[in-house]
Amino acid sequence: MLGSHQYGKAEVRLVHVARHGDRHHLTDLTVGVALAGDLADTHHTGDNARVLPTDSQKNTVYAFARRDGVGEIEEFGLRLARHFVASQPAITRATVTIEQHGWDRLGEHSFARAGAETRTTTVTVDGSDTVVVSGLSGMVLMNTTASEFFGFARDEYTTLPDAHDRILATAVDARWRHATGESDDWRASFAEARRHLVEAFVGTYSLSLQQTLYAMGRRVIEHRPEITEVRLSLPNKHHFNVDLAPFGLDNPNQVFHAPDRPYGLIEGAVRRDDAPQWVDSWWDA
Amino acid sequence: MLGSHQYGKAEVRLVHVARHGDRHHLTDLTVGVALAGDLADTHHTGDNARVLPTDSQKNTVYAFARRDGVGEIEEFGLRLARHFVASQPAITRATVTIEQHGWDRLGEHSFARAGAETRTTTVTVDGSDTVVVSGLSGMVLMNTTASEFFGFARDEYTTLPDAHDRILATAVDARWRHATGESDDWRASFAEARRHLVEAFVGTYSLSLQQTLYAMGRRVIEHRPEITEVRLSLPNKHHFNVDLAPFGLDNPNQVFHAPDRPYGLIEGAVRRDDAPQWVDSWWDA
Amino acid sequence: MLGSHQYGKAEVRLVHVARHGDRHHLTDLTVGVALAGDLADTHHTGDNARVLPTDSQKNTVYAFARRDGVGEIEEFGLRLARHFVASQPAITRATVTIEQHGWDRLGEHSFARAGAETRTTTVTVDGSDTVVVSGLSGMVLMNTTASEFFGFARDEYTTLPDAHDRILATAVDARWRHATGESDDWRASFAEARRHLVEAFVGTYSLSLQQTLYAMGRRVIEHRPEITEVRLSLPNKHHFNVDLAPFGLDNPNQVFHAPDRPYGLIEGAVRRDDAPQWVDSWWDA
Amino acid sequence: MLGSHQYGKAEVRLVHVARHGDRHHLTDLTVGVALAGDLADTHHTGDNARVLPTDSQKNTVYAFARRDGVGEIEEFGLRLARHFVASQPAITRATVTIEQHGWDRLGEHSFARAGAETRTTTVTVDGSDTVVVSGLSGMVLMNTTASEFFGFARDEYTTLPDAHDRILATAVDARWRHATGESDDWRASFAEARRHLVEAFVGTYSLSLQQTLYAMGRRVIEHRPEITEVRLSLPNKHHFNVDLAPFGLDNPNQVFHAPDRPYGLIEGAVRRDDAPQWVDSWWDA
Repeated sequence: MLGSHQYGKAEVRLVHVARHGDRHHLTDLTVGVALAGDLADTHHTGDNARVLPTDSQKNTVYAFARRDGVGEIEEFGLRLARHFVASQPAITRATVTIEQHGWDRLGEHSFARAGAETRTTTVTVDGSDTVVVSGLSGMVLMNTTASEFFGFARDEYTTLPDAHDRILATAVDARWRHATGESDDWRASFAEARRHLVEAFVGTYSLSLQQTLYAMGRRVIEHRPEITEVRLSLPNKHHFNVDLAPFGLDNPNQVFHAPDRPYGLIEGAVRRDDAPQWVDSWWDA
Repeated sequence: MLGSHQYGKAEVRLVHVARHGDRHHLTDLTVGVALAGDLADTHHTGDNARVLPTDSQKNTVYAFARRDGVGEIEEFGLRLARHFVASQPAITRATVTIEQHGWDRLGEHSFARAGAETRTTTVTVDGSDTVVVSGLSGMVLMNTTASEFFGFARDEYTTLPDAHDRILATAVDARWRHATGESDDWRASFAEARRHLVEAFVGTYSLSLQQTLYAMGRRVIEHRPEITEVRLSLPNKHHFNVDLAPFGLDNPNQVFHAPDRPYGLIEGAVRRDDAPQWVDSWWDA
Repeated sequence: MLGSHQYGKAEVRLVHVARHGDRHHLTDLTVGVALAGDLADTHHTGDNARVLPTDSQKNTVYAFARRDGVGEIEEFGLRLARHFVASQPAITRATVTIEQHGWDRLGEHSFARAGAETRTTTVTVDGSDTVVVSGLSGMVLMNTTASEFFGFARDEYTTLPDAHDRILATAVDARWRHATGESDDWRASFAEARRHLVEAFVGTYSLSLQQTLYAMGRRVIEHRPEITEVRLSLPNKHHFNVDLAPFGLDNPNQVFHAPDRPYGLIEGAVRRDDAPQWVDSWWDA
Repeated sequence: MLGSHQYGKAEVRLVHVARHGDRHHLTDLTVGVALAGDLADTHHTGDNARVLPTDSQKNTVYAFARRDGVGEIEEFGLRLARHFVASQPAITRATVTIEQHGWDRLGEHSFARAGAETRTTTVTVDGSDTVVVSGLSGMVLMNTTASEFFGFARDEYTTLPDAHDRILATAVDARWRHATGESDDWRASFAEARRHLVEAFVGTYSLSLQQTLYAMGRRVIEHRPEITEVRLSLPNKHHFNVDLAPFGLDNPNQVFHAPDRPYGLIEGAVRRDDAPQWVDSWWDA
C-alpha cells in the first residue's frame, strides 16, 4: 500500500529587487514547495487530475513575489502555503521551505554577497494547523580558548587525553519553532534569536560542546517567549594541536591542523515544558 | 528543559583491505555513530562522566574492522551499534550509518572507483529493539522516452503544456526497512532490491514520476518478503526541449537543456499493510 | 593597457538523443566557448559592435547539435570553433572545451549514469592553427600493494618513515595533445589512450608516484603516434595505516584512514622529442 | 622524454592563534607547496634521493608558523618558498600558494567565519627570480541597475534583445602581480587593491561586463604603482527577468530567476606598458 507521500518543486531561485526611487532593496531566496493530500490516483494509475504541476508551483512563487513583494520569509512562506491548501481541493498540507542568502549594501543599488550563513524557515499549513519554524545554517563560530574536555568515560578504545584548553569551533545549524503562526515582527524575532545563540556561544566557558549547545538553546527559550523549542545540530569542527616536538619546537595552542572529516556531531533540543509536539519528518506525520 | 539529543562521530573514512594471498578485497566506507541515553549531566553542568568521547567511537570503528573484518555493512553496523549499547551503561540507543563506495576490480590488487552511487545502511539498536534500514543513493537513471505527463490540474499559474513524450530522469535515493535485524544474506537482499528498483524504472511506461515511484516500491515489496517498507525520494531531473525554431530547425525530442535547479521532488513510501511503525527522525523518537 | 582577454559562455549543458528506431543513443555534454580577437572597444568604451553575445554562442551549441548531431566531442568542438572564427570577423581565436558525462545502457532507451569520470577535449582554432587536446578527469585508481616509497631526501622536518608496502591511489587528470586537428577515429584514439593509462597504472610496480606518472605518459606516447605530449596531474590520495597497537591489535596493511586533505600532488608531462610547443594558458598565448 | 614537472603538498590546512594576553589573533590558511628541479631520476627509475617528501613540506609549513608566526600571506609564502630552494640542492623553483579565510572578531578570543571570499597569493622563487602574485576569489558583487547591454553583433543564432536596464552580478576572481618581491606593507597593498576593484565595480555605469572588467583593472593599475598587471576572471551571473505576463502581471525588473549554468565568462588583463612577462602556467615556464 501507498504510505506517506508528497511532491513539489525544490530550489526555486528567486531574486527580488524592490525599487524605492534610486535606493534598491535586494532579497535573494531559494524556495521549495511540497504538497500532500489526496494523491493516490497518480501513484496507482498515472491519473494526474489532482496533480498541480511543480512548474505551476514555481510560477506561483514568482507571481506572488511580484504581486505583493516578499517581506520576511516567514510571511512569504505562509502566503504561499496557505494559497496551495486553499486553492487546490486535493491538497491538505503544504510545506514551504525558504533559505535567505545575505547581501551587504555597498551603495544605493550595489551589494556584496555576505557569508555562507543563511536564514531559513519551514512553514507547514496542514488543515487548520500552521507551524512556523525559523532558523539559520552555516554560521561558523570559534572560541580559541575557554573550552575544556575532561573527565569523560573511558573504555578500552579510548586514547584521548584530557584537554584543559582547546579550540571550540562549530557550524551552527539551528531551527526553532514558534508558538503560533502569527507574529508582528518576524525580523526582530529572528535577529534576537540569532543574537542569543551567538552570545551564548561566545559567553559560555565550555566543558563540552553539549554544555554549549544547551546554553545556546536555553538562552533563546528564556528570552523569546514566542519560541517553544530550539533544535541545534552542532558539528565539532576539530582543531588538533600539531606535534612540533620532532622539530625542537613547543606548541602551546598556537598551531592547529583542521581536518575536514571525521567530526563530532552534537545534536539536541531545548524546549519549554509545555512545548507542543514537533514532528520533524513529514514521513512520520 | 532538555529535549531529544544524541551525539557521536560523523564521517569516519575507513578503507579495509582483505588479503587472500595475492588477491585483495577492498571495502571503502564512510561510517557515522550517534549515541543517546542518560546524557543530561554534560548538557547541564559539563560533567562528562557518561560521555564516551567521539574519538573513542572512531577508534572502535577501526579496531572492529581489524579484529573481525567488515563483511556486509548491515552486519558491521549491527556489531558496532550493539557494542556501544552493551558496553556503555549510560547509552540506551546507538545508531550507526554507513555509506559504501563502490570499486570495480582491475586486477588482483588493482581497482577503479565506480560511480557516485553508494550503498547505505542505518542500524539502530534501542533497548531490545533493532531496526535495520538498507538503501542506496546517487543512482542516476534516465528513460529517453516512454514517459508522458498530461491531464494534470490547472490553475491560473499553469502554463505547462501536456507532454506526450518526454525524458524521465532521476537520482534515486531509496531506503528500505527490514522486518528483522537478522539475515542470512544481506548482500543478496541488497542486490535484489536494487535490481527490482532498476527494472521497475526501466520497465514502467510512465504517466507521472509518482507512478514510477510507486511501481518501484511495489516491486520491491512484492518480491522481497524480508522488506516491510520502501521510502523513495526522486528528484525529477528536468530535461527541457530547446526551442530551435528561431534558427529554422525543428527539435523532435533530440536536443535538451538540463538545468540544475529548480527540480521537481517526488517522495513516497510503499509498505506492507502490517508494516511496523518507522520513525524516520530520531528527534521524534 | 589591455592585456590578454577572451570571453564566452561556460558550462552549457547539452543532452542529445539520437533515435535510431526504438534504439536511442545518448550524449551528455557540458560545453564552454571562449572567443578572442579585436575586442578592445567593448573594454574601453562599451561599444559592443564586435561582441557576439554569449547567449548566441549557447544557441549555436544547441543548433549545431540538432543540425548535424554531436558525434565525437573533438569533432563537435572543431565544428563549433571553426564556425566562430569563420563567421565572426572580429574573432581570431575560438576555444571550445567539452566534458562528456558517461551513461551505461540499460535498455533500448534506458540508461544509468556512469561514474564521475569524464572524457574531455579542448579545441583551439587560432588563425590557421588548430590544436586538439583530448583527456579525461575523475578516474580514481588504486593499487592496494606493489607500491613503495623509500630512500627519499631527508631534512630537519622529515619524520616520514620508509614505506615498503603502501596503498597507491590517485584521481587521474590527464590531457594529451594531438599532432594534428584531423583524425579518422577520435573514439578509438581516446579509448586506446585511456587503456594505456590504466594498464600502466595497474602494471607498474611503483617506487614513487612520479615513476608511475612517467610510465603512464610514456606508454601513451609509445603506442599512440597521433599523440605528441601527455600532461598528467595526479593527486596522491593518501591512505594511512591506523595505529591499533593501543588496542592490542596489529595492522598489517589492512585498516586505513583516508583523509581528504592535504594530499600530495604530482604533475608532469611526457612528450616526444619533436613535440610542438604547447601553451597551456591562453593568458600567455 | 620527460617534460615540465613539479610535485608538492596541496591544501595544508593551518589555523594559527597568536595570543597577546587575553586577546587572540586568528589566521586561517590553506597552503600548497610545489617544487621543481632536478627530479628526473624519480620519474625514470623511482630513485627518490632528491625527493623531499611532501609530508616534510607539510611539516615545514606548521613549523614555520610556530617559529616565526604567519604575518601577511605574501611574507609567509616568501619565507617558505625561499627555504625550499635554499635548503634542497635539487630544487630550483618553489611555488607556494596560500588562501586566507576570513574571520570576524566577536570577542577577545571569539570569532565568526566571514564570507566565501578568500585572499590569495602565489609566490614563486625560481633561481634568483621572485614573483609575488596577490589576489582574491569568491567576492560576489551585484549592481541591480546602471547596467545595459545593446548594440552587439548579431548572427543567425542571435535572439537576445537589447537590454537597457539589467542586473550585473559577478564573482570576482582577481590576481595581480607585484613589481618586486619586496614590500613594506602587503596588508595595505591588498586592502587598497581590493577597495579599488570594489569601487570600480560599484561606480562604473556598465555597457558590458568587459567595460567593467577593464575599469576595475585600470583603477588598480592607476592607483597602485607596486602592481604591474591585474588579471580578472568574471563570470556573468545572469539574472533573467521572469515573464509574468501569462498571470496578468508586469515585471519592471523586480523578479528575477538566477540560473546556475550556463554563465558568461569574461576574462582579461590590464597591465602597464612596461609590465614584465607573466607566465601563468608553470607547464609553460
